Amino acid sequence: MRIIRTTQALRTWQRRHDPLRGSIGLVPTMGALHGGHRALIRHARRTCGTVVVSIFVNPLQFGPAEDYRRYPRDLSRDLACCREENVDLVFLPKAETLYPHDFQTTVAVGALSQRWEGEHRPTHFQGVTTVVTKLLNLVRPDRAFLGQKDYQQYCVIRQLVKDLDLDLRITLCPTVRDADGFALSSRNRYVTNTQRQRALALYQALAAGKQAIAGGTRRADLVEKKMVKVLDAGHGLAIDYLRCCDARSLEPLTRLRGTVVLLGAIRVGGVRFIDNLIVRIR
Amino acid sequence: MRIIRTTQALRTWQRRHDPLRGSIGLVPTMGALHGGHRALIRHARRTCGTVVVSIFVNPLQFGPAEDYRRYPRDLSRDLACCREENVDLVFLPKAETLYPHDFQTTVAVGALSQRWEGEHRPTHFQGVTTVVTKLLNLVRPDRAFLGQKDYQQYCVIRQLVKDLDLDLRITLCPTVRDADGFALSSRNRYVTNTQRQRALALYQALAAGKQAIAGGTRRADLVEKKMVKVLDAGHGLAIDYLRCCDARSLEPLTRLRGTVVLLGAIRVGGVRFIDNLIVRIR
Repeated sequence: MRIIRTTQALRTWQRRHDPLRGSIGLVPTMGALHGGHRALIRHARRTCGTVVVSIFVNPLQFGPAEDYRRYPRDLSRDLACCREENVDLVFLPKAETLYPHDFQTTVAVGALSQRWEGEHRPTHFQGVTTVVTKLLNLVRPDRAFLGQKDYQQYCVIRQLVKDLDLDLRITLCPTVRDADGFALSSRNRYVTNTQRQRALALYQALAAGKQAIAGGTRRADLVEKKMVKVLDAGHGLAIDYLRCCDARSLEPLTRLRGTVVLLGAIRVGGVRFIDNLIVRIR
Repeated sequence: MRIIRTTQALRTWQRRHDPLRGSIGLVPTMGALHGGHRALIRHARRTCGTVVVSIFVNPLQFGPAEDYRRYPRDLSRDLACCREENVDLVFLPKAETLYPHDFQTTVAVGALSQRWEGEHRPTHFQGVTTVVTKLLNLVRPDRAFLGQKDYQQYCVIRQLVKDLDLDLRITLCPTVRDADGFALSSRNRYVTNTQRQRALALYQALAAGKQAIAGGTRRADLVEKKMVKVLDAGHGLAIDYLRCCDARSLEPLTRLRGTVVLLGAIRVGGVRFIDNLIVRIR
């Protein structure tokens, strides 16, 4: 497994990449790899000749009051994980490598970035889209693999790729969950057991919403009421949003039809949790 | 010469391009081709195996009060010019091809875009950088050729390419001028002879500034005073700016050293003219 830390070396690697060795698959990560990342890497491994994992805690996507400094970093474990999963190349840049002193360019997606997470984290998605554009231009992958856990991020990046005419396919991979349904996330590392127990109500609320739709409910307000009821059973939970949205536009729905995404974000004692479930209505 | 109008067809062409046929050179234009464009195409022809010219009057880079609708369009003459210059491919998209109804992504360069032209045309450069990113991603050229006439645009695009890790080389080609020094521009087509005569004072002012530096002046204020004096000899001229700047950062200088660019923009009866001269100080 090769480890590259500079953009120059990555560029040289990219230019020398032999197309006969198959397509390039990219799994962009911020490290602190868990089972969800492993699933992405395995999907890439099954479908691409060359698998690249980028590990970069991107300062641009953290707000000033957010957890950039304490975001979990565990490089030796991450590299061991990549080796186990047979990754070909790990791109491991420093912040000053991707953002030298005179860096001044921003890539921003409009409407899709402004809702939901965008309302609570105003500069988050433009940090994501800026670094993703850089990574895609450096690695030039044929495919990139993203987790459903960050569903809005997937929608924003898909729009970015379409709008900027980037030549690759984005694959969405299912959220990996613990046995009780709790979605895996790097941030879970600094969540206490009590917080985790309480936050589990988010998944339970989304699952109850999904069940209501499966049972025939087509009014978004009724599904949302049901979800809020499940969440309210927990104590000390603050709901940022918990809505039924169109899975493509992320607009909130009144009447449910087509592919619906149940999107939720809550706060438990200062920690934010997001999760979602996709429901296809026939 | 091939003409392609859709992004899909361009993508297919790009994917099938045989690297053994040499590098791809792109000359991005808004049509209404003149001697300046011909010089860019010839430079591309000399140095690249495949020459692509894009012709697209980009609505995003015009302000609401600007001349998008009346910008000169002359397709048959443009195509004849490309044929004469032995262009391989003309990319000729419609506005709705590059900006479909759900288009919502913006690429913006910071400090370099905000000065000079940016102050007078606040959304201009983000329109330029957004379309240029799209064109570069579609054509994937090895080199792109830009004219010195739009020197700030060149600086902004060079920064964009660096910041977003685009893999190409940008070549700046000298401004092409009429015998009296007047810089060629597509917009000259709707300038009256009287306006042209008056606007020529901009070039004369810049030339006087360059001469002052050649004569040993190293104080920017003295050079600028000299340039303003030459311009003031004309009547009905409004100066937007006329300054000595660092050729890389475009910051205004106090003491002249290194590579200096004399940047000017004036208005003559409602029409804006920009021009510049580069001076290397030993």
